Order: sequence, then structure tokens, then C-alpha cells
Amino acid sequence: MSVYQATASAPVNIACIKYWGKRDTKLILPTNSSLSVTLDQDHLRSTTTSRADPSFEQDLLWLNGAEDEIKPGGRLETCISEMKKLRAAVEAKSPNEPKLSEFKVHIASYNNFPTAAGLASSASGFAALVSSLAVLYKLPATPSQLSLIARQGSGSACRSLFGGFVAWEMGTRADGSDSLAIEVAPREHWPDIHALICVVNDAKKGTSSTSGMQRTVETSELLQHRITHVVPARMRAISAAITARDFDAFARITMQDSNQFHAVALDTDPPIFYLNDVSRAIIALVVEYNRVSVAAGGKLKAAYTYDAGPNAVIYTAKENVKEIVSLIVKYFPQADAFKDPFKLFGTAGVGEGSVVEGFNTNVAKKFEVGAVKTLIHTRVGDGPRTLGEEESLLGEDGTPKTLA
Amino acid sequence: MSVYQATASAPVNIACIKYWGKRDTKLILPTNSSLSVTLDQDHLRSTTTSRADPSFEQDLLWLNGAEDEIKPGGRLETCISEMKKLRAAVEAKSPNEPKLSEFKVHIASYNNFPTAAGLASSASGFAALVSSLAVLYKLPATPSQLSLIARQGSGSACRSLFGGFVAWEMGTRADGSDSLAIEVAPREHWPDIHALICVVNDAKKGTSSTSGMQRTVETSELLQHRITHVVPARMRAISAAITARDFDAFARITMQDSNQFHAVALDTDPPIFYLNDVSRAIIALVVEYNRVSVAAGGKLKAAYTYDAGPNAVIYTAKENVKEIVSLIVKYFPQADAFKDPFKLFGTAGVGEGSVVEGFNTNVAKKFEVGAVKTLIHTRVGDGPRTLGEEESLLGEDGTPKTLA
Repeated sequence: MSVYQATASAPVNIACIKYWGKRDTKLILPTNSSLSVTLDQDHLRSTTTSRADPSFEQDLLWLNGAEDEIKPGGRLETCISEMKKLRAAVEAKSPNEPKLSEFKVHIASYNNFPTAAGLASSASGFAALVSSLAVLYKLPATPSQLSLIARQGSGSACRSLFGGFVAWEMGTRADGSDSLAIEVAPREHWPDIHALICVVNDAKKGTSSTSGMQRTVETSELLQHRITHVVPARMRAISAAITARDFDAFARITMQDSNQFHAVALDTDPPIFYLNDVSRAIIALVVEYNRVSVAAGGKLKAAYTYDAGPNAVIYTAKENVKEIVSLIVKYFPQADAFKDPFKLFGTAGVGEGSVVEGFNTNVAKKFEVGAVKTLIHTRVGDGPRTLGEEESLLGEDGTPKTLA
Repeated sequence: MSVYQATASAPVNIACIKYWGKRDTKLILPTNSSLSVTLDQDHLRSTTTSRADPSFEQDLLWLNGAEDEIKPGGRLETCISEMKKLRAAVEAKSPNEPKLSEFKVHIASYNNFPTAAGLASSASGFAALVSSLAVLYKLPATPSQLSLIARQGSGSACRSLFGGFVAWEMGTRADGSDSLAIEVAPREHWPDIHALICVVNDAKKGTSSTSGMQRTVETSELLQHRITHVVPARMRAISAAITARDFDAFARITMQDSNQFHAVALDTDPPIFYLNDVSRAIIALVVEYNRVSVAAGGKLKAAYTYDAGPNAVIYTAKENVKEIVSLIVKYFPQADAFKDPFKLFGTAGVGEGSVVEGFNTNVAKKFEVGAVKTLIHTRVGDGPRTLGEEESLLGEDGTPKTLA
């Protein structure tokens, strides 16, 4: 008897133009368009195996080995049932196809980065879920079509259906059928974009983004202006910057939009704070690093951006990563050695860190070890990948394999 | 021979609707109206003695005993020369008046609160300067007329010309002649408004408000919306709340406007941060304190507000001050005993602090001693006072007395 199974992996994405606010909370339709960089799955990814089998009694899902409830009417159930509908359409056209849409599915998903890293895993997770089901179901769907379904799992998941530089167009239709992801440029267009993730120690769990963004929609008087006037212009400008590989413009818009997202969070009642003193110090370092470059007749060399938490993601060209890692390590001493996936540093490693010539070392104080817990170096990456049988996360019995 | 001298004191004011942005940096004309509460001079004040004498060779000014340069074309010089013009007009009408406008002046000013307290002394300082000269020169000017001159020394100084609740109307004229302070309500209208100032330890000096606000004007896309749409409505709403002694509305608008001011600072490029982790924790405490009250069917009982620094000012009705002091002390242990000017606590003092019933103690962590350096309890106060000769800060020789 055939085993109907597929495994796919999907990347994390980090927005440059931020998504903050829904106009429809059930369909997850945003109040503004957004744009992100897809990060490399070689470093950060969610992997999902989906299997359909007539012997399965119910849809089941395991996340990192632990069963996760598929609540009726919830986001997981929505995505799975939408995928089954697309499969049913395939079966209706091709009567010889097995009736997988009528089988229950078992799904195992695994993130290769710890939840404690503070990286949102819902985007890569829902993108991997939808991607694995699309392969299993042999859907003729494009990434944009799949993004419509991933979006209903987690808004920003729709952007993880593409590699490179990705826009989530907010759309205008009430049914959400035009609120989808499109590719602005593939990774090959600008492979030089690297990212340094500074995982910041956070004493307190902040407001969840789901509840936080709706409080902003309800109470911030500034959000409407952002939505109506600021974001549309920034979407055009940053798309043009990406097309032209203009890092200076890309960096300026990215930092401005991170700031504005946190500004409307602060303008919420009661206010929402995601940046802490460590986050602020990283901003001060990047601002000073850029100032030195501009003062020497150069351009912006780095761009910070912050999602709904204190972690910084710093975008830069590959040639600057070494300077920036060294800068961060100087102010935020690391407990563990920097994992150096691109072999920037020799066997001696980063050492105690250093600043570039002309850098005003007074812009921040040196923090205690652990204020920045981890530094992750990655770069722009590709879209979801279909993996081979050997990567399957499900054992023969239809439950998750134990991972080494 | 006569001594022509006058001494006046003037209060600090803390804005509920924030002033942030100038449309004319020389005349100090703001981009929006603002509104403040005048604090009690019994606790916080600037005192200024001005003397005019034909023997003086130049205008001189001492601040807290140290000579301060009166730069040509600077703010001090502008205020002094504007006051001399008003005196000259008096002399023109009353030929018997001595020609004080032609004499040089010696001015000694003293703040009874340490600069290290992080309270802006420029508002009370310029208000006291203008007030003492107005008495010396026997000017028939109203507080609003004097506020036009104090404004040119430091924008928010114009609001310290009145007690109680004070609006600075931005005006529309290019010469600034209608950009002045008016009394919304005297202290006697609502004497129950008390203020608790939490002086927060700050590792780093933030961006000066003068340069910061202009960067916001130049780079924040949200500021224009605030100026045009948000502030005018809030000025009307908070004035109505004051008239009605509606603390709930007063508190809500005050907190929203503090948040929005810091939001537009964050929306500035590069971003400006004044709130640190301690400031954020105080906000969390006030939010939770209010939540408990509202959950019990009550109303907002406290309102935080932050100027261009990390210090909190908490407005509340007198009956709640004891609870709030106790709450702050619990999370921010004090090195020194709380000075208890209103005798709220017995001889045992505040002790280790406490929270009200139902308070979720997890909203903030307990900080180290000194995170909040000082707590100052005061209340709404009166406008500038004319003081007697015995309060003079100038000795017979025309230089500052040594203060005990």
C-alpha cells in the first residue's frame, strides 16, 4: 500500500516594512502592506512532514515532538481544511487521483532554532505546513496562491512562501482573495544582503503581537496616518531600493519603519513597549556606526529592525558583517563563542571586539555578559524547499520520529 | 539713594499636553498648543532678584551663585531687552519715573531643587526672571503679556506665569504676538490634584529637547498628524475635563499625550528615546494600579507623564498619594526616607511599600536601590509670587549673597 507523504522546509522572514494591525481578524487581512527579507534556511528553518492515510482517525499535529491541539475553527484547522479543499478540486478534475482530501492527516513540524531564541516561528511554521501539504496533494498552486492560505495561519507566514525580497500586498477585497505575497526580487538579485540577529535577554514577556496590534488599531491616533500615508510611499520606495540594490535607501527606510512601528505601539492605550535598554543600546551603536561612515563621505552600512520583541536584526552587506559582529561583541560580551558560519574570523575568533576608527565609544555602555544572549549570522535565502523521504519527521507508525 | 530691586519666585510646570516642535526657533513659536499643571512653589521654585543701578557697567546674571554668560542675541539677552522695552514705554508715559530702562541690571537666580533632580529649571527660571523684572519695572503687564517674553527665553516658561491649569496657545501670527499662556483654571478650582515626581537614575544624557524637537519636526512623518489632528482635539477635551474636575478623562488624555510625544520622538530619524527600563516599569505600575480600580467598577486614579527624560510625574487626587508612594517604594526601594510634606505616613514612615488588593505584582520586577533616586510629593500650585526685601538674593555690592 502507498504511503502518501511529503516533507518541506520553509524559511523565517524579517520585515523591513512592518505588518501591524488587522482589518479582518478571522481572515487575517492587514491594515497595510508589508515587505520582508527571507532568511537562509541553511541556518533557520521550519521543517514539516505531512502524511495522509485512510487509517488515520483524526487530523493530528506535533510541534517539536509535542502534540499541538488542532482547535475547531482555529488557525491550524483553517489552513488544513483550505488545503484539503484545493486537493478536492484536483481530485474532481483527475478522477484517478487517490482521494487524499478525504483522509485524515498527521503532521510533524520541527524548528531548528530554539523557541527561546525569541524568533517568531509561526511564519516559517505555517509556510512549511502549507508547503508540505501542497506537495503531498500535488497542488498546481503558485507560491502566491499558497500564501493566501498560509496568511490565515499567521499573517506574516504568507511572506515565507518566497525567497529573496517579498511583499505582502494588503489587497482590498473583503474575502481576502487579493491579500497575498509576491516576489519583489529573488535572493539571486541581491545575495550580498546578510543579517545578524542579536537575541536579547528579556526579563518580561511583552504583549503578544496578536492582541497588541488590535489594541493599536483601536486606540492609536497615529496608526491611521501611518496606514494611509506613510506605508504606501515606503512600499514603493523600498521596492525601488531593492530593484536598484541601493543599500543606503533600503537601510534608511528599514530603520524608519522599525521606529514607526514601535512608535505606534507606544501610541497605543495602554502603551506597548517591545524595546528595552539593550535594544536601545544596539540602535545607538548602529546609528553611530552609520554616522562614522557618512562622516567619511560614505553611506549607511547597516540597518536595524525590531519585531514585537527586544531582539535586533541588523541587515548589512556581507563585507561589513565582521565589523558589526566585533562591535556588538565589544558592548555585549558573549558567554559562548560566536558561531561563524561564513568563516569571517580566523581560529582566534572575535576576541573582545572592537570599534571602527572614529567611533564614539560613549554612545552606549558596556553591558554584562548575557544581555545579548546569542548572535546568529545568516543572509537572504530561498523559498520553501521540498525535501526527500530521508528527511521525514514521521515514523512508520505515523507519529514523530525521535530526533537526535 | 534708592535701591531699585525686586525679588520674585516662580513655579515649575509639567505638561499634560506636550510641547514638541517649533515653527519659529528664534521667537520660540510652537507647532502645537500645550497645557500644563503648575506645581506648588512651596516645594519647587526658582527665585530671582533683579536690581537696576546706574553704577552697573553691564547686565550680569548669576544662576545658583555662578555667573552665567548673557550672550548677545541669546535667550537671556532677548528677555532682558524685551523687558527693558516695556519699561521704556512706562517711562515714556510717566516722565517722573526713574529711567531704569537705561540702567544695567544685576540678576541672581536660585533653584531650590538640585539640577541633578532632572527637572527642567528653565521654565521656572525664565518665569522668575521675567516676574522679578516686571515688579522692578512696575510694568502694568498681565501674566499673559509677560508670558510672551518668558516664551522667548524657554518655550514652556510661558506656562509658569500662571498657577493652576495653564494653556499655551500656539497662536497663528508670524511675530508671535498671540503665542501666549492663558489660565484654564486657577489652583483653587481643583486643589485636590497632587503630583508625585519619581526622579529616575539615568546612565546616559539623552538628546537635548531643543535639538531633539527640531529633528522630530524635520523627520517624523507622524508629527504632522499629531499637530494637525490630535492635539487640537485633546486641548479641548482636557480643558473640559479640568473644568468638570473629571479626573478620569484628565488622566486618560494626559497618559495618551505623554505616550504620543514619546512616540513621535521614536518616529524621529535617528530615533530619540527618553524612557528607559525604569520609566517603562513605572508606566506598568500605574497601568496596573488603574486596572485594579477600573476592574472594581471605579475610574482611573493616577496619570503618568514624562518630559524629555526618564523621570515620571504621577498626577493623582490627594487621597491616592499614600497608595502610590507605597507602590513605588515597593518596586523602587529608596536609599533615603521619603520626605513626607503632607504627613501622609506616621512616624514609622513608608516602610517597604505595598500594593493595593488585587494588584498583579508580576507587572514589573523589583529594582535595585537608587533606580528611582528620589520621590518628591507636591501638588498644583499658584503663579509667580512677589517676595519681600528679606528674600533678596543680591547683597549690597550687587553680587549674589552666599546662601546657607
